[in-house]
Amino acid sequence: MSSYWNSRVRKLDPYTPGEQPRDRKFIKLNTNENPYPPPPGVIEAIREAAGEGLRLYPDPSCLLPRLAIAEQYGVRPGQVFVGNGSDEVLAFAFAAFFGKGAGGDDNGVPLLLFPDISYSFYPVYAGLWDIPFKTIPLTENFTIDLSSYHVNSGGVIFPNPNAPTGIALKAEEILPVAEYQARDNRVIIVDEAYGAFAGSGPLPGKGLLGAESLVPYTDRHPNMLTVHTLSKTASLAGLRAGFAIGNKTLIEGLCRVRDSFNSYPVDRLAQAGIAAAMADAAHYAETARKVIATRERVIPLLREEGFRTLPSAANFIFIRHPEKTGAALFAALRERGILVRHWDRGRIADFLRVSIGTDAEMDEFLSAARQITGRGK
Amino acid sequence: MSSYWNSRVRKLDPYTPGEQPRDRKFIKLNTNENPYPPPPGVIEAIREAAGEGLRLYPDPSCLLPRLAIAEQYGVRPGQVFVGNGSDEVLAFAFAAFFGKGAGGDDNGVPLLLFPDISYSFYPVYAGLWDIPFKTIPLTENFTIDLSSYHVNSGGVIFPNPNAPTGIALKAEEILPVAEYQARDNRVIIVDEAYGAFAGSGPLPGKGLLGAESLVPYTDRHPNMLTVHTLSKTASLAGLRAGFAIGNKTLIEGLCRVRDSFNSYPVDRLAQAGIAAAMADAAHYAETARKVIATRERVIPLLREEGFRTLPSAANFIFIRHPEKTGAALFAALRERGILVRHWDRGRIADFLRVSIGTDAEMDEFLSAARQITGRGK
Repeated sequence: MSSYWNSRVRKLDPYTPGEQPRDRKFIKLNTNENPYPPPPGVIEAIREAAGEGLRLYPDPSCLLPRLAIAEQYGVRPGQVFVGNGSDEVLAFAFAAFFGKGAGGDDNGVPLLLFPDISYSFYPVYAGLWDIPFKTIPLTENFTIDLSSYHVNSGGVIFPNPNAPTGIALKAEEILPVAEYQARDNRVIIVDEAYGAFAGSGPLPGKGLLGAESLVPYTDRHPNMLTVHTLSKTASLAGLRAGFAIGNKTLIEGLCRVRDSFNSYPVDRLAQAGIAAAMADAAHYAETARKVIATRERVIPLLREEGFRTLPSAANFIFIRHPEKTGAALFAALRERGILVRHWDRGRIADFLRVSIGTDAEMDEFLSAARQITGRGK
Repeated sequence: MSSYWNSRVRKLDPYTPGEQPRDRKFIKLNTNENPYPPPPGVIEAIREAAGEGLRLYPDPSCLLPRLAIAEQYGVRPGQVFVGNGSDEVLAFAFAAFFGKGAGGDDNGVPLLLFPDISYSFYPVYAGLWDIPFKTIPLTENFTIDLSSYHVNSGGVIFPNPNAPTGIALKAEEILPVAEYQARDNRVIIVDEAYGAFAGSGPLPGKGLLGAESLVPYTDRHPNMLTVHTLSKTASLAGLRAGFAIGNKTLIEGLCRVRDSFNSYPVDRLAQAGIAAAMADAAHYAETARKVIATRERVIPLLREEGFRTLPSAANFIFIRHPEKTGAALFAALRERGILVRHWDRGRIADFLRVSIGTDAEMDEFLSAARQITGRGK
């Protein structure tokens, strides 16, 4: 604790990202990265943007990537906001829509609602922007209990599919929450980071849009914002590219926060990469289907080894073994060169989140799991 | 004003960046970009990073660029923080060190101090993070009145050279302010965005370090943070790369805010570009000297045309003409295809900030200026 820090920074409880090992070679199943590389066209577009033009600032409005996203997702460019990774988009959204005066109502500070088991950055953002919140427990099956979100609130946020459980809700189940929250002008944010891996992957001809995406309902729900990332579906975690889709006044709110934070958060290379990735949507849909196929192959094999797995609609699985603690499993896998994610917390302390890698990587993971649970040679 | 916005976003008064024209070809002297391209080695390093590795998240700690900066600037890697442009670094610094509880003192909310004429993003950051501040008028000569900063405060921030005036202070004049503010653990931030253009450019063998840089005094002043950017000196405005140098607890404070906002704000391409740029410091020192030579050539020619110019130590000049309003000059230049920056505000309403372009660009600017002031053909 430093005497130079103000109250905010002293109180913060920062997010801990998954380990990014620098030296030892690990099989990296800990940060939900896509095991397949971005297609050559995207890399080419980025390399082309890496030229003399770098001496000039990027377009602060991100017009070209917004046009490309709008076309691919069937919305208008004014309904799209682009940021430096979806984490930045979420940080701006917390700053714009939740907390004091949420819904334009300056009387009182209503509570933001999100699941108790969800993206662990949510309470961190709430701390950063001083937003009071209430977590709502998942059901016994680890699903989001939507009925609990039909209450007065300061806004609602959750991912669909949820993380780290991987469980998805149907779009039609979520929309009534948006309707309920609209009565007090409260904003509902649904983070669709893993949306493309739901069901059997993106719908044919619908680009990167997941089967349960709320994007097609954007026009009908002015208080609903969906958040998207190119990190998982588009194999561009290293580029930092995320975006939000919502109605004009929500997008304008995000722009106001951005322009009070960093006028140019998305560099020229990311802008070129995002636009190119949208043109390669068919490639990415194919990749998503490969990841889904691997996931569906691995789950029954893990069950044969005695693992319990939650039903996953994401590019990761959330698993536990009745005879091993999560901490022990995590450590034993790490010893064998396999990195997964573990949170030493309450109901999920015995679970591991395992990203879906290539088939070869998952075979190594399965073999290590067999050794650890005593069934391997 | 949207009913979905909270109190914060309704109150914000966002920063307006300089125009980035998309269609018409302008001579762009409005955002202090470097007129010379980044060297081939930097572009090559970025292109090389634009490969399959993009599927993986970047190193959240930015170790490689920090090592390169530390070596070049003669500090330790733990004294360096890297961000997505110096605007982001400044946004994090405002969040960490100013406002409620500044200096670890939870009694009262002391006022942050900065000049009335300075980087116009400062009051915007203060609005974003709810930081009360007081502006201190520049002297009649438009210099920062350092004696006014020897008072109890909630922290101090200014650029050196100041923007948009371009006037630089000597390092030895600033250090007593750092000493004074240290008595109450208040942080002083000096933004050295334009530092490399002071005097006759970076000192030989000192990399990108400007003649009046405070970086060599880092160890002695634990409450002092300097902020740097690769946008101007290193011709990388389009890459978004900035950094701060200060002592360990200040850097840790910045990391805590970053990790509560976006774990990976600096993408793989920017990390590669920053490291490569540091290796090319000698090239950039040469470029800075070219910009300075052009500036020194242009100033007397403008004076011949009746312009008044403040003494510039930056890659821009701040000028006015006694017979023309700033608004009229701005519009007339724009009509002739030349973009400069104008703020319609108080004492500087009749000034224009003109970035130093290539010699050819400045000749076109001079010729337009002659036409406008009635001395051209």
